[in-house]
Amino acid sequence: MGKGLDVVTLAEKFATFSEHWQPRIVGQVNDLHIKIAKIEGEFVWHSHADTDEFFLVHKGSFVMEYRDRKVALKAGDIHVVPKGVEHRPVAAEECEIVMIEPAGTLNTGDAGGERTVAEPEWV
Amino acid sequence: MGKGLDVVTLAEKFATFSEHWQPRIVGQVNDLHIKIAKIEGEFVWHSHADTDEFFLVHKGSFVMEYRDRKVALKAGDIHVVPKGVEHRPVAAEECEIVMIEPAGTLNTGDAGGERTVAEPEWV
Repeated sequence: MGKGLDVVTLAEKFATFSEHWQPRIVGQVNDLHIKIAKIEGEFVWHSHADTDEFFLVHKGSFVMEYRDRKVALKAGDIHVVPKGVEHRPVAAEECEIVMIEPAGTLNTGDAGGERTVAEPEWV
Repeated sequence: MGKGLDVVTLAEKFATFSEHWQPRIVGQVNDLHIKIAKIEGEFVWHSHADTDEFFLVHKGSFVMEYRDRKVALKAGDIHVVPKGVEHRPVAAEECEIVMIEPAGTLNTGDAGGERTVAEPEWV
């Protein structure tokens, strides 16, 4: 997509990879990246000190776990994780998600660790 | 949605209104509003001097017209209008769209006029 004026067909972009928890970048809006990811299983608990995080479920379903509650999300649902709040996405089966957050936001937030993707690739 | 931690089910939000070209706010990410709208027919030519504009087609299809090209978009497609570039959405039949842009961004941008919605309501 790069400089805009192009079309991002989500189904085509999701078809370009199969790894779980490995976000790809598909576009940019101002200083925000539009990312997509396939998720399955439990991710790590983490938070983002400086930003909210937008989620849209494209296909399937998952649960956004917080320390005091769980939010169930299915295809066609939007959810915003507030900045600074610990969360953990958990997907019983493979789920396709769209995320929007400032460029440079790490998937593991403040937690770091081996599942961190420092520089997601564009697809 | 307000303070987050809630679920925005797009189909339910779109069911709350029927007017065309009257955006509603369904959520917020940092200083950006997440808006939805039903569109049909031709909108006015306009641009946004200070911001890109994110579009996702939820249902149906429409064409984003630029002065030198047309970009056809269908359900599941994302498109970003670059800041400062004149554009006009045109939908042959009713189409449901999701937009993300800074709070306060006017639907008619620099063009103004009677179709301006100064303060979209939350649904």
